[in-house]
Amino acid sequence: MNVLIVYAHPEPRSLNGSLKDVAVAHLQQAGHQVQVSDLYAMQWKSQLDPADSLAPVQGDRFDPSLDSKYAFENGMQREDIAREQEKLRWADTVIFQFPLWWFSMPAILKGWFDRVYAYGFAYGVGEHNDRHWGDRYGEGTMAGKRAMLIVTTGGWESHYSPRGINGAIDDILFPIQHGMLHYPGFEVLPPLVVYRCGKMDQARFGELTRQLTQRLDNLWHTAPLPYRKQNGGDYLIPDLTLREGLAAGESGLAIHQHKRA
Amino acid sequence: MNVLIVYAHPEPRSLNGSLKDVAVAHLQQAGHQVQVSDLYAMQWKSQLDPADSLAPVQGDRFDPSLDSKYAFENGMQREDIAREQEKLRWADTVIFQFPLWWFSMPAILKGWFDRVYAYGFAYGVGEHNDRHWGDRYGEGTMAGKRAMLIVTTGGWESHYSPRGINGAIDDILFPIQHGMLHYPGFEVLPPLVVYRCGKMDQARFGELTRQLTQRLDNLWHTAPLPYRKQNGGDYLIPDLTLREGLAAGESGLAIHQHKRA
Repeated sequence: MNVLIVYAHPEPRSLNGSLKDVAVAHLQQAGHQVQVSDLYAMQWKSQLDPADSLAPVQGDRFDPSLDSKYAFENGMQREDIAREQEKLRWADTVIFQFPLWWFSMPAILKGWFDRVYAYGFAYGVGEHNDRHWGDRYGEGTMAGKRAMLIVTTGGWESHYSPRGINGAIDDILFPIQHGMLHYPGFEVLPPLVVYRCGKMDQARFGELTRQLTQRLDNLWHTAPLPYRKQNGGDYLIPDLTLREGLAAGESGLAIHQHKRA
Repeated sequence: MNVLIVYAHPEPRSLNGSLKDVAVAHLQQAGHQVQVSDLYAMQWKSQLDPADSLAPVQGDRFDPSLDSKYAFENGMQREDIAREQEKLRWADTVIFQFPLWWFSMPAILKGWFDRVYAYGFAYGVGEHNDRHWGDRYGEGTMAGKRAMLIVTTGGWESHYSPRGINGAIDDILFPIQHGMLHYPGFEVLPPLVVYRCGKMDQARFGELTRQLTQRLDNLWHTAPLPYRKQNGGDYLIPDLTLREGLAAGESGLAIHQHKRA
């Protein structure tokens, strides 16, 4: 299997760095091909701007979507963007590993999504008609590929529990797992979340390593999160609201998942 | 009133740029003091890294929290960070204006939060005991200040409705409004969200301008989102789970708001 690890932490000798090293070694030992996009080491450019296209601005002013579309369609993207897209095409599974900063990903990783997810590549894909509203949320360029988050946080597990003050971890990660991964077609595996990462010792790290390698061994067999497909009949088109009768009487982001048996 | 606008869009002549200009002019005309942090124009550094502290790395390796703490406490922060903190101290109200990219903020703005929100300034504030778990979620450095998001998105309003496929806008913005604004003590005003921003014409822009200036006129009188306070008795300490009996039988991120009368 081809595995891409997109990794964002400024300190190689951090917990995140150690977990990434464990993951790479374990996957290679199991015979997989591994590439790592170590965003800090690559000095990844975070901000999306006109320099992302080698073509001149197309309209009378820079338009993030339209200039991205033109550059993507005409092979005029900056080299760093094209290279990451190539890695995504190559990968069967993509692991995103990062510390949760302010309930989201580090800026450098957000900038990876902002820039690599070009118009025509990760959005603006597929036809729009009265039964199909673009290839998205379960369809798209990443269809058939799997993605998984590995996330560390200083907070306690209870703080991220269904009634925890930070918001349930599934809900906090929804903009990422549903909005950035399910959207272009990835099957999203349950995340590996490390809580209280500031309180790590040898025993916990050993246990965590076991948990991580087990997840890696099962990358291809783990049931993905049962997010609903946009064009599968569950949503009205073009309103894209969940059809009456589904998740009746329920609310919150969980309505966008099928109930597990 | 002192108003800080933190603004992130790469094109000054964009809808976002126009709305920002309208806001600045309107606020100044009403006699308010306005400062703008135009992150693209400032070439804001997005990635948090060891260069954010002028002191040498304190431990045996770079620790984002602990090195931030040391730099903050000892006046050793990079100048760009200290300057933004000074603007926050000065402001009575802070407006964050940005296009919604991938269900979150542009990387350059995330990098503003990652870097300006230092340990000792926006987190790691206040005592921890069995009745008070730090000054956060309703208390903290920003207590008494107000914050409001102005957000543009290409998607339709129905796609962000309570049963819309993108997730309800309140839930999608929760990591920002609750996690980045309520956390250090801001009162968070309802956001101004512009849907289908790609379909803008003169008539819609005129209507939008009216809506915006009305919101600005009422900055000080608008009821904030009724997020619960962490240390106000609604959450068990230190588990920080919502006390039994509150929002009974409900689920989703909405449980963290008081019901409006």
